[in-house]
Amino acid sequence: MKYLFATVLIMMMNSVFSSDFYSPNGNIKLTVTLEEGQIYYFVSFKQKIVIKNSRLQIETEKEGQILNDLVETSSTSKTIDELWNPILGEQSEIRNHCIEVMKVFEQKNSGIKTIITFRLYNHGIAFRYEFPLQKNLNYFNIKNEQTEFRLTGNHKAFWLPADFDSQEYSYSEGRISDIDNNTIDLNNGIALKSIPSRFAVQSPLMMKTDDGIYLNIFEAAVDNYPVMHLSVDKANFAFTSLLPSNPLGIKAYLQTPAKTPWRTILLADNAANLLESNIILNLNEPCKIENTDWIKPVKYVGIWWEMHVGLSTWDYKGSKSAHSFYQEETVQTKHGATTENAMRYIDFAEKHQFDAVLIEGWNIGWEDWFGNWKEDVFDFTTPYPDFDLPKIASYAQSKGVKLIMHHETSGSASNYERHLDRAFNLMKEYQYPAVKTGYVGKIIPRGEYHDGQTMVNHYHHIVKRAAEYQIVVNSHESSRPTGMHRTWPNYIAAEAARGNEFNGWSIGNPPAHETILPFTRLLGGPMDYTPGIFEIKMNVYDSSKSFQVHTTLAKQLALYVTMYSPLQMAADLPENYERYADAFQFIKDVALDWQKSIYLHAEPGDYLVVARKEKIGERWFIGAITDENDREINLGFSFLDKEKTYEATIYSDSPEAHWQTNPKAYTIRKINITQQSSLKLQLAPGGGAAISLKPLNN
Amino acid sequence: MKYLFATVLIMMMNSVFSSDFYSPNGNIKLTVTLEEGQIYYFVSFKQKIVIKNSRLQIETEKEGQILNDLVETSSTSKTIDELWNPILGEQSEIRNHCIEVMKVFEQKNSGIKTIITFRLYNHGIAFRYEFPLQKNLNYFNIKNEQTEFRLTGNHKAFWLPADFDSQEYSYSEGRISDIDNNTIDLNNGIALKSIPSRFAVQSPLMMKTDDGIYLNIFEAAVDNYPVMHLSVDKANFAFTSLLPSNPLGIKAYLQTPAKTPWRTILLADNAANLLESNIILNLNEPCKIENTDWIKPVKYVGIWWEMHVGLSTWDYKGSKSAHSFYQEETVQTKHGATTENAMRYIDFAEKHQFDAVLIEGWNIGWEDWFGNWKEDVFDFTTPYPDFDLPKIASYAQSKGVKLIMHHETSGSASNYERHLDRAFNLMKEYQYPAVKTGYVGKIIPRGEYHDGQTMVNHYHHIVKRAAEYQIVVNSHESSRPTGMHRTWPNYIAAEAARGNEFNGWSIGNPPAHETILPFTRLLGGPMDYTPGIFEIKMNVYDSSKSFQVHTTLAKQLALYVTMYSPLQMAADLPENYERYADAFQFIKDVALDWQKSIYLHAEPGDYLVVARKEKIGERWFIGAITDENDREINLGFSFLDKEKTYEATIYSDSPEAHWQTNPKAYTIRKINITQQSSLKLQLAPGGGAAISLKPLNN
Repeated sequence: MKYLFATVLIMMMNSVFSSDFYSPNGNIKLTVTLEEGQIYYFVSFKQKIVIKNSRLQIETEKEGQILNDLVETSSTSKTIDELWNPILGEQSEIRNHCIEVMKVFEQKNSGIKTIITFRLYNHGIAFRYEFPLQKNLNYFNIKNEQTEFRLTGNHKAFWLPADFDSQEYSYSEGRISDIDNNTIDLNNGIALKSIPSRFAVQSPLMMKTDDGIYLNIFEAAVDNYPVMHLSVDKANFAFTSLLPSNPLGIKAYLQTPAKTPWRTILLADNAANLLESNIILNLNEPCKIENTDWIKPVKYVGIWWEMHVGLSTWDYKGSKSAHSFYQEETVQTKHGATTENAMRYIDFAEKHQFDAVLIEGWNIGWEDWFGNWKEDVFDFTTPYPDFDLPKIASYAQSKGVKLIMHHETSGSASNYERHLDRAFNLMKEYQYPAVKTGYVGKIIPRGEYHDGQTMVNHYHHIVKRAAEYQIVVNSHESSRPTGMHRTWPNYIAAEAARGNEFNGWSIGNPPAHETILPFTRLLGGPMDYTPGIFEIKMNVYDSSKSFQVHTTLAKQLALYVTMYSPLQMAADLPENYERYADAFQFIKDVALDWQKSIYLHAEPGDYLVVARKEKIGERWFIGAITDENDREINLGFSFLDKEKTYEATIYSDSPEAHWQTNPKAYTIRKINITQQSSLKLQLAPGGGAAISLKPLNN
Repeated sequence: MKYLFATVLIMMMNSVFSSDFYSPNGNIKLTVTLEEGQIYYFVSFKQKIVIKNSRLQIETEKEGQILNDLVETSSTSKTIDELWNPILGEQSEIRNHCIEVMKVFEQKNSGIKTIITFRLYNHGIAFRYEFPLQKNLNYFNIKNEQTEFRLTGNHKAFWLPADFDSQEYSYSEGRISDIDNNTIDLNNGIALKSIPSRFAVQSPLMMKTDDGIYLNIFEAAVDNYPVMHLSVDKANFAFTSLLPSNPLGIKAYLQTPAKTPWRTILLADNAANLLESNIILNLNEPCKIENTDWIKPVKYVGIWWEMHVGLSTWDYKGSKSAHSFYQEETVQTKHGATTENAMRYIDFAEKHQFDAVLIEGWNIGWEDWFGNWKEDVFDFTTPYPDFDLPKIASYAQSKGVKLIMHHETSGSASNYERHLDRAFNLMKEYQYPAVKTGYVGKIIPRGEYHDGQTMVNHYHHIVKRAAEYQIVVNSHESSRPTGMHRTWPNYIAAEAARGNEFNGWSIGNPPAHETILPFTRLLGGPMDYTPGIFEIKMNVYDSSKSFQVHTTLAKQLALYVTMYSPLQMAADLPENYERYADAFQFIKDVALDWQKSIYLHAEPGDYLVVARKEKIGERWFIGAITDENDREINLGFSFLDKEKTYEATIYSDSPEAHWQTNPKAYTIRKINITQQSSLKLQLAPGGGAAISLKPLNN
């Protein structure tokens, strides 16, 4: 760490009732006041108030409200300006530049001390509650956190209903005053929903004011604490933190010294700035893994989509019935994870130089894995009889292809923890370097939520144990990330949002979906969205099905660039890639780890254009996507090396393309590009474009 | 298994409203009736009704009461008569001789099938609910079990208050009509109490009718189901099963085929017969461990009592404070589990030919282990800096002494499961063949009870995993055993009752305590009572303390025989044993595994005399104990080999001995004994006698 500026120290005893602080560039002003013993904060961005008098409060089980009747005992501030290098990332170097303000408060009667630490960045502020080691507070239980975010107008919001068990919704776009979970179509393919109230949304909550300010409420470094949702006071445009409880009504069990996650408010008048801010990552702890050589990007294929489209099953018998004893159905389909099929995918991965193959449905337990709240559903170590684990593993090794283990838990975290060492030891024995975990179903320990403290700790436990085994983790149906992959870079990706899979068997994801995710879910960390579905319409598998991917084929390619992740799947079937081999070339080429990323054009819910330069090498990749509207993008290339001429391969929608009526109409052309070039990209409705730029040998 | 009698099959369809069944010797009659679609049962013993019309009912979460509106669809009965050999036990061979009756019932509207299986033994009956695989019942949740035991009079009862977290009470002795948990002195040293209601008791519940019938309500083979307590209807002398719920109000999550534990009613007109019945063991499944060679009795000493009497501490700093940062107390005492002290105990064990040494307080976490409901309190693998694990382990190996690992969990079962493989691997690395587990504190997962389904499954999980590692388990503060040690003989002992330790620092255990335990707690399995405290009064350690063991020294010796356990501790300090080396000789000599056991005299709450012959060899050991009253025992020896003359060493109370005023007055004498001999034993108030009988070389 390099502290470029000197630390500024201000000591104030019992005298200050209001104090102002500014972001390094002066654009953001934070005011903290103590009014009648209560802490409030205000925020303005470029002279406009964006957060008005919002109260901070914590209620504990025994001590009650510990942030009233306060005196401020000290206030210190310092400048942080440091550079650091993520192990994998959108940039090879990230600057953490902010003003940090620490205010110490003491409750008059109890003597309980609480510190509020603020950080002011050029594109947002963050703050958290800290409970230092002290005589009057040792073990304590959070009964409620009432952090307010009082906004100044009826902004446009991209919101998901608050749900303590799922984030797999499509975004609703509308005014704050229109937020109402009763308006959500719940026939959306989500298996388990736990919506705590009608007027409550998830964070990250992306908003835009009428005067063009982008405002995002989120959190960073959620650890040993539940996930923050937001209650909505629609009349006052005010949000209050809403945390899931355990079955005893407690939000978090803490011991001093303790810290809550950072509560963040990102601010920008240009949407691209918001995406480039890195604030969430900067608020997380530095990497805790000493040797990270083994943490590498993963481009993979897998036995997975064939189950989603109904060509094969996870379970051995192809029946998916709990009691095959009684449910003597005709076997309608076949098991996906066979030795033969695994070897076919390994061959495909080798041929097309993928890093790895994921195989789901390899282990016993899929007969009644779903919806039964069963504790000991999987053992994570016993393959089905038609899955020859040693043979497959040695075949993969002989081909230089890695295997990704699959650990579906059915939500039974207790069962997974019980088997974890055995499961990871099996992985090491057969040289699986990566695991995809899954949490489909109601949580066990029963009464816990996916987003509660217990489960947050569980996910981190898995990641930390995996690090000891040098295993990278891609978790599905876990709580959405909040930058932990800085600290534990083996937490390579997560799902934790509505992924591409919903297009296979539900009303799917509207074309705008992928233009919103970067402003919400992706702020917290990489997503395993599983792009690359070329066979857009599901009626090719089953003529009775009207399901489809809500993009063009070209947009599926663009997603590899617009949705940052160091783990990316080519999700479609090998045979579909063979059929569209020219388009497939982009997926084969695209990098996963970056030296720099430039958000060229961005508007949540409308479009996104990103250019990224690979970390090692000189190639650039550009992704451009649009929502349901067609769009013309004027692309400049000033970011390119001025010395070089690049061969650009442009994968774009054909003029007649349309996500619904003609999704597979694409064109591929090659042109030379220099820093001075400009290019018009035509994006079809629900369309996109992907470009790879390779320097020509001069 | 040998079926000595033919199977009798009776098929009855929808016609039978009442049927009678008899125990093999005809002493017990069971009547099962179906009245208005409800099942009732009656029991008589030697023509006297002991259980009157008692209803059986199960309520599930979704289906409601599933045992009303029934028709009986079949009834079958058969005789079971088989012999089996416990791995460790009071006998080398046990006869399982009973009539088994299976009645299948179907609920008219739902079609749900339930089987009630009864077993009639000569000294008791048992029954359980079975839910077979069926279309109409797959996953289901027990909301309530309402099994009635309607007694016929206001019997004398030895009862403990129902408590879902502790059995560590002294027994109250009185009429059923006097049962009232408000009468209990709760200042009894029990750290965590969860008494669900004022009028409820624990099982096993030992009773005696006015006409001299001994009647005990208990259960066997509790697995995947909570522990059964009993609600009391004092007016009607009726008990109903009372099960702890999880925090969501569910008692058990089951999937068909499923079985509840056996509900048992032991019956005898001679108290000794009840102790010899083996019914609880017979109701458990045969041994599931293939190779049991590694399961051996364990006689041990340990670094343990010195902490109880205040000479040393579990924690490293000797402060026991959570935040030594603030609580800068003077270090008043010293850490017990040091390398030097461990080696001292190993030397002592070697010198006196003990199998093993237990060392508690060896691992980090004891600073704030207690009372904080902390999840990650211990890691089970990191020794304190003054405990040189490799050195101690290799020293023990060089001396031929085993080590017993200690795993205190503080009730945080989730944390223990998370660390289990690492903890067991450490044990294997350092050749620890046994573990003592502990569950002092509120359970995590939070909201669960020690006696709930989740924890019952946890204890069994630990035992099963331990079996895979060839580790024997001695669990403390777990739910009381119900014969599982037949199935998993590596579950070598448990505490699960008020042990000797309470005499060290609380009002202690009254002199009658050890005369009741064989009729209650010990019916379910061996107890690690930790007898052998020679230094009876705690004022030798701290003159301000008035605590004391409520027995004479001689009675402490007798407990090694009267309280069966294949794991026995010599609990006192080495220096105390050196001081009373002649009495210590009995502890060194006494066997732990038996060819046969004969209960010569028994009356719960009063006295107990047991003779046991060692499993391999010809020695006999006799233990005799009394309550607070002195007693003369006339001992015959008809059980001895008539060919042999035995040298008997008799350890008995001196004439002036008294548990309170003169507890250490004992005499040791040697006489020759044959089958024809008789002997008068004088037991002091709170006293006892121990005899070892060694055949003389003829």
